Amino acid sequence: MLASPGFFVLMVAVAICRGLRCSNMNTEDELVDGGSEYGSVWPLPQNVRISTVSFKLAGSAFQVVDSKDSTAGSSCSLLQNAYRRYYEYVFGNARNPADARRVTALGAPGLAELQVWITSPDPECDGYPRAASDESYELSVNQTYALLKAPKVWGALRGLETFSQLVYEDEHGAKTINATEISDFPRFAHRGVLLDSSRHFLPIKVILANLEAMAMNKFNVFHWHIVDDPSFPYFSRTFPQLSQQGAYHPYTHVYTPADVKMVIEFARLRGIRVVPEFDTPGHTQSWGKGQKDLLTPCYSGSSPSGTFGPVNPILNTTYDFMSQFFKEISTVFPDEYVHLGGDEVDFNCWRSNPDIQKFMDQQGFGGDYSMLESFYIQKLLDIVATTQKGYVIWQEVFDNGVKLKPDTVVHVWIGNKLEEELHNVTAEGYATILSSPWYLDYISYGQDWQKYYKVEPLNFKGTEAQKKLVIGGEACLWGEYVDATNLTPRLWPRASAVAERLWSAKDVTDLDDAYRRLSIHRCRMVERGIPAEPLFTSYCPREYRGI
Amino acid sequence: MLASPGFFVLMVAVAICRGLRCSNMNTEDELVDGGSEYGSVWPLPQNVRISTVSFKLAGSAFQVVDSKDSTAGSSCSLLQNAYRRYYEYVFGNARNPADARRVTALGAPGLAELQVWITSPDPECDGYPRAASDESYELSVNQTYALLKAPKVWGALRGLETFSQLVYEDEHGAKTINATEISDFPRFAHRGVLLDSSRHFLPIKVILANLEAMAMNKFNVFHWHIVDDPSFPYFSRTFPQLSQQGAYHPYTHVYTPADVKMVIEFARLRGIRVVPEFDTPGHTQSWGKGQKDLLTPCYSGSSPSGTFGPVNPILNTTYDFMSQFFKEISTVFPDEYVHLGGDEVDFNCWRSNPDIQKFMDQQGFGGDYSMLESFYIQKLLDIVATTQKGYVIWQEVFDNGVKLKPDTVVHVWIGNKLEEELHNVTAEGYATILSSPWYLDYISYGQDWQKYYKVEPLNFKGTEAQKKLVIGGEACLWGEYVDATNLTPRLWPRASAVAERLWSAKDVTDLDDAYRRLSIHRCRMVERGIPAEPLFTSYCPREYRGI
Repeated sequence: MLASPGFFVLMVAVAICRGLRCSNMNTEDELVDGGSEYGSVWPLPQNVRISTVSFKLAGSAFQVVDSKDSTAGSSCSLLQNAYRRYYEYVFGNARNPADARRVTALGAPGLAELQVWITSPDPECDGYPRAASDESYELSVNQTYALLKAPKVWGALRGLETFSQLVYEDEHGAKTINATEISDFPRFAHRGVLLDSSRHFLPIKVILANLEAMAMNKFNVFHWHIVDDPSFPYFSRTFPQLSQQGAYHPYTHVYTPADVKMVIEFARLRGIRVVPEFDTPGHTQSWGKGQKDLLTPCYSGSSPSGTFGPVNPILNTTYDFMSQFFKEISTVFPDEYVHLGGDEVDFNCWRSNPDIQKFMDQQGFGGDYSMLESFYIQKLLDIVATTQKGYVIWQEVFDNGVKLKPDTVVHVWIGNKLEEELHNVTAEGYATILSSPWYLDYISYGQDWQKYYKVEPLNFKGTEAQKKLVIGGEACLWGEYVDATNLTPRLWPRASAVAERLWSAKDVTDLDDAYRRLSIHRCRMVERGIPAEPLFTSYCPREYRGI
Repeated sequence: MLASPGFFVLMVAVAICRGLRCSNMNTEDELVDGGSEYGSVWPLPQNVRISTVSFKLAGSAFQVVDSKDSTAGSSCSLLQNAYRRYYEYVFGNARNPADARRVTALGAPGLAELQVWITSPDPECDGYPRAASDESYELSVNQTYALLKAPKVWGALRGLETFSQLVYEDEHGAKTINATEISDFPRFAHRGVLLDSSRHFLPIKVILANLEAMAMNKFNVFHWHIVDDPSFPYFSRTFPQLSQQGAYHPYTHVYTPADVKMVIEFARLRGIRVVPEFDTPGHTQSWGKGQKDLLTPCYSGSSPSGTFGPVNPILNTTYDFMSQFFKEISTVFPDEYVHLGGDEVDFNCWRSNPDIQKFMDQQGFGGDYSMLESFYIQKLLDIVATTQKGYVIWQEVFDNGVKLKPDTVVHVWIGNKLEEELHNVTAEGYATILSSPWYLDYISYGQDWQKYYKVEPLNFKGTEAQKKLVIGGEACLWGEYVDATNLTPRLWPRASAVAERLWSAKDVTDLDDAYRRLSIHRCRMVERGIPAEPLFTSYCPREYRGI
């Protein structure tokens, strides 16, 4: 129960290194099945020193405790919850909990506890993670105890994950860790995963499992593409007809307010923001089922065809609806940002509608329907701005010249002219997140994780100030071909490649080293109950227990 | 409990049809979410008449019973086991078992039982399915009871699957079936799935789940590619060192004799043959770990390099080993056939070895190493022939001109010059099975099941007699990128496309109709616990409960 901030560093054969080189250090003769048992941290920390001196963890006597100087005490349930979670990750699969103690008794030096020291006056225990949250931490593992030091709880969560990844089993199955010094922080602040619960409904269980996996990879944003054309599973208190009519099924295929709350809290406890996307004016077919007159009636010649197009931008009722709807969204989702979509608007229906044509004439838009789209988006952005939320929009909104709030985040997703787009967006001073290279729904044969891994997000022409505006990226798993049956193994460990690209230093690019660490990391996810698929021919000491 | 073979046929709006046209019949106004609730049989039977007259199943009072004239009675545990299994498939997910009875009480005509009548003097209850097994059946569903008539238990199993697929839920959730007449048999006798348990170890649980799914699709051969270069998980009683040294782990990653026995019996109860593959002389790196001198030492210049190549074909000890090994295999696996592999032999190692060179000279093979390969294979085939087994070999063995027993089955897998190969193999009178178009490990974005579905196996130049020699095909899921985490959703329902191609009539080729039926069939598999992935944007009434 020592909590002294000063501690002895006893290291033999220590080297100082940065990025990928660390994991190769002193591990050559420790390689097991092509990897290093202790050099398997994923994503790789910014600064690591791992010694060859190892300690046994003191088995069931091992504790994770608050440092006595920590500003977060036992009332910080976020941390207490995390201590338990990581204790279970480390020891949950021990074949014999007595092993570690026995080995310690035989004379090996032991590690009795991990002390967690939150240093900032406000640890943010009860807050929500934000784009600006401090996720940095320092981890020092030595004989007797290890110390995890972080300004905020968010860094402590990242450090606990790292600590748990440093623990391995020796040849007798005893939980072991090497003397280690780590100083770590993310390269990019926004590291997200997009899941799509409209094309296929994703049971809450699946969403929670993937939040777990996200935390294992230090992702910090769950971009919840919650509704789209095919279905509207979000249960709105204000407009219950939206899911009553627009969900695949009004009871079995909806997210109730309690479900949404649970997802948000589960994510918060793991330092993950939940950014919901309510994409308009396109991608809204399912909205129209429960909200009369919201969508534009398409015409076939001079009469309505019975089908509907994008949101109808010429009716006041549309904006009344949006005001009420986004007012609700702003209270249900605590994140500072909401994603407003704005992509892929098909103009054919608008073009066919005589009322729309008349409106276009009145406004002087001529035949330029992107001006009508901008008209709509502009009004929507103004509405959302009144809810005190920032917004993320897909790149078309920027491309079409809509006037944006200075804190708008532009989401780049089109692969064509990617570098040009990044240049343009940042040249106008907007923050941006990148997804174009990371559409993980586009599967192909072989190790495509390498393709995702090789991406360098700042590889475009621009000033230092412009580069700083790239705040991160997102791996997108669109839902056409995934549901509860196959989503999780399709996402992991392919998304892990994106996770390391967004967290680790720019020069962490060695594919062979990544393969070694990622192979072990994926088995670690499997052992923790995530069906992460294999990278290639191989095995895990403990294979997945499901089917 | 009526068991009269004569029964009344009461059908309204009946049509006679064949193949795909059936499922479109009378279902237009019954379509639910793009499909037909009762036209969802997969694979489509050879002859079907489905009426619009429907009956409710008599809930928990419903029974599957032996017809009084059946040659298989209550001692036929294969059938009794199947009755229970299909009862559970039909009623297992009923939200309220009283529903069906209630509706029946309201006056709808009811179906009280399914009678199963095995007509042949030998029902083959305790036998193993064989290449020549009779899988035909006739199914007649009418008021009061349904009759399933089959010469052998194998046909009864197929008919039970069909019966269970005809049952659907009405708008009140009551189990319902339409008056139906089916006469069915497979187009091809050999309908297989290859799983590879060497590149990744597949836990028994995964193998059994996939045998279940195979039965749901009327597959009848499990081609167990059990060992290969990366690992040797087969526990041999005669040579325990093979798995002791060659498995990924000698205890957690092996198939014990009890495991193998369980797989074979589980398969037998579903009418599925287990054809094991022990591929030599290539693909044998893992064999070499536990069997000294079995593999050829490769040379670097004039000295051994420390690496090993294919099985050493010039030593008598090799053939002594193979004799003993395949003697064991012939007793452990009851199937009439064993797959001997023979593909992709790399000659570089043989070429480097001076002893091999000397042997080549002595035999007068010159520099033609395919002659050495044939020399080895010839001796191996002679050895296996003494065990009274037939053998399947990959096409290279035929291509290299090895002398084969007349009952040899040639397995065609190379995509290039496929039609030419089928022509050549059948021209020489050998039976053949096709896999070239069905390598399901080669994934791609989108609905690739359509590509597998469109294949016509007899689309090559040849006589009627030659066409008859194509006894079937196999969907192959090689193991480089699949293990317990992702195998099952990657295999299903993509393999279902192959299943229908191999079972149904040649003219069953309508993709739209297949899409409708397969969508429902995949949800049925999901409901039965198989995580079969979606075809496209959609939902299942009951989504998969795992992650």
